[in-house]
Amino acid sequence: MAERRLRLGVAGLGRAASSMLPSLAAHPHVDIVAAADQLPLARARFEADFGGRTWESAEALAGDPGIDAIYVATPHQCHVSDVVAAAAHGKHVLVEKPMALSVEECAAMTDAARASGIALVVGHTHAFDPVVRTMRDVIASGELGALRMIVNVAYTDFLYRPRRPEELDSARGGGIMYNQVPHQIEIVRALDGGPLRSVRAASGVWDRNRPTEGAMTALLEFASGVAASLTYSGYDHFDSDELAFWIAESGADKSPAHGAARRALGARSAGDEARMKAESAFAGRGVRLAETPAHQPHFGMLIASCERGDLRPSADGVLVYGDDGVREIPLPRGRTFPNKDGVIDELYDAVVRGIAPLHDAAWGTATVAAALALVQSARERREIMLEGADVR
Amino acid sequence: MAERRLRLGVAGLGRAASSMLPSLAAHPHVDIVAAADQLPLARARFEADFGGRTWESAEALAGDPGIDAIYVATPHQCHVSDVVAAAAHGKHVLVEKPMALSVEECAAMTDAARASGIALVVGHTHAFDPVVRTMRDVIASGELGALRMIVNVAYTDFLYRPRRPEELDSARGGGIMYNQVPHQIEIVRALDGGPLRSVRAASGVWDRNRPTEGAMTALLEFASGVAASLTYSGYDHFDSDELAFWIAESGADKSPAHGAARRALGARSAGDEARMKAESAFAGRGVRLAETPAHQPHFGMLIASCERGDLRPSADGVLVYGDDGVREIPLPRGRTFPNKDGVIDELYDAVVRGIAPLHDAAWGTATVAAALALVQSARERREIMLEGADVR
Ligand SMILES: NC(=O)c1ccc[n+]([C@@H]2O[C@H](COP(=O)([O-])OP(=O)(O)OC[C@H]3O[C@@H](n4cnc5c(N)ncnc54)[C@H](O)[C@@H]3O)[C@@H](O)[C@H]2O)c1
Ligand SMILES: NC(=O)c1ccc[n+]([C@@H]2O[C@H](COP(=O)([O-])OP(=O)(O)OC[C@H]3O[C@@H](n4cnc5c(N)ncnc54)[C@H](O)[C@@H]3O)[C@@H](O)[C@H]2O)c1
Repeated sequence: MAERRLRLGVAGLGRAASSMLPSLAAHPHVDIVAAADQLPLARARFEADFGGRTWESAEALAGDPGIDAIYVATPHQCHVSDVVAAAAHGKHVLVEKPMALSVEECAAMTDAARASGIALVVGHTHAFDPVVRTMRDVIASGELGALRMIVNVAYTDFLYRPRRPEELDSARGGGIMYNQVPHQIEIVRALDGGPLRSVRAASGVWDRNRPTEGAMTALLEFASGVAASLTYSGYDHFDSDELAFWIAESGADKSPAHGAARRALGARSAGDEARMKAESAFAGRGVRLAETPAHQPHFGMLIASCERGDLRPSADGVLVYGDDGVREIPLPRGRTFPNKDGVIDELYDAVVRGIAPLHDAAWGTATVAAALALVQSARERREIMLEGADVR
Repeated sequence: MAERRLRLGVAGLGRAASSMLPSLAAHPHVDIVAAADQLPLARARFEADFGGRTWESAEALAGDPGIDAIYVATPHQCHVSDVVAAAAHGKHVLVEKPMALSVEECAAMTDAARASGIALVVGHTHAFDPVVRTMRDVIASGELGALRMIVNVAYTDFLYRPRRPEELDSARGGGIMYNQVPHQIEIVRALDGGPLRSVRAASGVWDRNRPTEGAMTALLEFASGVAASLTYSGYDHFDSDELAFWIAESGADKSPAHGAARRALGARSAGDEARMKAESAFAGRGVRLAETPAHQPHFGMLIASCERGDLRPSADGVLVYGDDGVREIPLPRGRTFPNKDGVIDELYDAVVRGIAPLHDAAWGTATVAAALALVQSARERREIMLEGADVR
C-alpha cells in the first residue's frame, strides 16, 4: 500500500527554514508545495527552487486549499497568530521553537489546535538529535541504573551571528534565554522524561552593543531528583566544540575559528545587519539539498550520569562509560544535512499515522515555562519552584 | 643575608603527606626534622628516609622543642585538636583541607591561633595551582573586563581509591562534599575574590557499597553577581581529564583507564581497604623526591568567562580566548612534582617574613561554611543563602 503524501507549506523562509528544507525535501512522503514570506526575494527563490505557490503572509498560506500542514518558521512573535490561523483552516502544524513567548500564548495555540483537531508538533530542538535519543534509550533500558545527573556546557558564537533587531531585545524574545537555552532544556527534559521541580539561574548581558542575554548558567532539578547543570555562552570566545571532537552543532567537521563571527559581523547598522542575515539564509543562497552529514549533530558538551555509568555523545555515536570501561554505540548517519529528520517524521506520523507526537503543545509549553522560570530566577537571584507548571 | 630556615614537623604520614613531602623537601629554606604517626611502619619509614625524630601522636610532636611549625595531615576529625595543641606550644601550622568538619571547630582553631600569635595556613587545594593564580591575575589586570561566570567540571575515580572507614561515612567527613568539592569551592573563590551569596546543590550516593556522596552539581552565586557552576563525579566512569588535554590532576601525563580504580579496589573488607590505602602511601612506598612535573597541575575542566574573554588552563599554561582569537600564556614548570610549592611558600612567608597568608583561618572557614551549605542545600533541595557567613 502506498503511503499517503503530506502536502506542506513553509511559513517564513529565513534561517530556520534554510536548515529545515533539506530534511523536508528529502522526506520520502512529504511534498513542499507552497510557502509564505513578506520578502519578495525569498518568495522568488522558493518559486525558482521548489516550483510551488507563494503567499505574502502565513495567514494567506493557511488558506491555501492545496496543503495539509504548515511549517511555521516565522519570528517568535508571529508563532501564536500563525498557528491559530493554520488551525482555523484545519492545517496541521510544525512550529519552530520556542513555541511562543509566554505560557498564555502557548495556551491559545493549544486551544486552537485542540478545537480544530489538528496535530501540533513543536521543534526542531537538539533533543531530537539521534545521540540524545540513543542516550535516552540506554537510560530507559536500565542497563546503567537510574539517571541521576546531567551536564550540558555550550560555548558558541551565537551572539555575533547576524540578527533582526528584535533578536537583540530580550523583551521581544531575543538573546540566548529564548533561543539557545530551550535546546538545553529540551535535551535534559528528553533524558529525564518527567517534569521539572525547580530552577536556579544566573545570566549575563556582557556586550552593551548586543544588549540581550548572551551567557547563562543554571541548575535545574527534576521532580525525579535528577539534577541538570546547563551553561551557555554565545560570546564567541572559547568554543565548546573543542570538547565535542571538533564537530559542529550540525555534525559537520569544524576548524577552530575563535572570534571569526565577531570579525565577520563587524560594526554595522541594525538594517545592514538584518539584510546580512537575510542574505546569508534562504533568500540569499537557497539551500543545498544533496549533502549528507559528516557526523552526528549535537549541542555542546553533554554528559548524562546514571548510577552505574556515564553517557556522552561521540562524533559518530554515543560513548557508554560503564563499570568495566568504555564502549561506543555507533549511529547511522542521518538522511540529510543538517539532520532534522526526527521532527519531520514526528509531524508525518502524527498527521498520517495518528501517532501522538512526543513534542506536542504540552511539551513545547513546558519548555517555554522553564525558559521563563530561568529568566525570572536570574532576574530575582533566587530559586524558582515549578511544581505544577508542567502540564504533563 | 642568609634566609632563616623553618624547622618543620609532619603530623600524619599518610596520602596527603606523601604528596606534600616532595615540595616540602625541595623548599630551599625548609628542614623536615620530625614527624608523628600512630603507625610504627610510617614512623620507621620517616626515620629511614628523613633521619628525623618521630612521635606517636601529633600532640607529642607539638611539644618537640626543635620545630617551628607543623604540617597537620592527620584525618579531618583530628585537625581541631592537632591545631589547638600546636598553637598551645607556639608552633605555626599548615593544616590540610578541609580545615575542619564544622564552623565551630574552625572557630576554635582560629581562636587558638590568634591567642598564641601563630601563623595558620590552610591548604593545599587546587586554588594554589599556577594556572588558577594566573587566571586570577589576568582577571585582576582588567584586560578582559569583569569576571562573570565560571564552570568547573570534574569526573574522576575518587570514590574507588582505597579509604579508611570514616572516609566512606558522610557524617565523619567522608565523600566528595568534604574532600573534593572544597577544591572546586576554593578555585572559584580564588577567581572571584569575594564572599559567596548563595548556593544550590544536588548530590548523589549512587553505589550502596560506598555509602557516601560520590557526585554533585551546584550553582554558587557570589555577592559580586559572579555565578559558578560546579559538577563532580568520582564514580570512575567518564574521566574529565579527557577535556583537559589528558593531563592528570597532578600535571602528569595520563592514559585513559576508565574503571581501573574500581577494578584495582575490587571487593574487600574495610580493614583490607584501609591497609591497602596505607601501603599505597608513605608508609608503604615512601616518596620520590627528585621528580619534576610534566605539565601544570589542574582540577577538571575549568572555564572562567569575563565580559571580553574566556580563560582556561592548558597543559602548560593558560589559554586566553579574547575578542580577537586565542593565545596561550606559558607557565614555568613547578619546582616539584606534585607541585605544592605555593602553599609552602605561603607558610614560609607568613612565619619568616610576616606576610599575612591569603589562605588563612578565615579563608579555610569560609570554604568549610560553603561546603556545609552545599550539603544542606542538597539535603533540603533548596537554595541556601550565605550572606554574612563569610567572615571576610
Ligand atoms: N530550530 C532551530 O535550530 C532554529 C534555528 C533558527 C531559527 N529558529 C526559529 O525559527 C524562527 C525564525 O527564526 P529565523 O532565524 O529563521 O528568522 P529569519 O529572520 O531568518 O526568518 C524569518 C522569516 O520570516 C519572514 N517573515 C517575518 N514575518 C513574517 C510574516 N508575518 N509572514 C510571513 N513571513 C514573515 C521574514 O521575512 C524571514 O524571511 C524563530 O522562532 C527561531 O527561534 C529555530
Ligand atoms: N590537599 C590534598 O590534595 C589532600 C590529599 C589527600 C588528603 N588530604 C587531607 O589530608 C588529611 C589526611 O588524609 P589522608 O588521605 O592523607 O589520610 P591517610 O589515612 O592516608 O593519612 C593519615 C595519617 O595520619 C595518621 N594518624 C591518624 N590519626 C593520627 C593521630 N591522632 N596522630 C598521629 N597520626 C595519626 C594515620 O596513621 C595516617 O598515616 C585529610 O584531612 C585529607 O582531607 C588532602
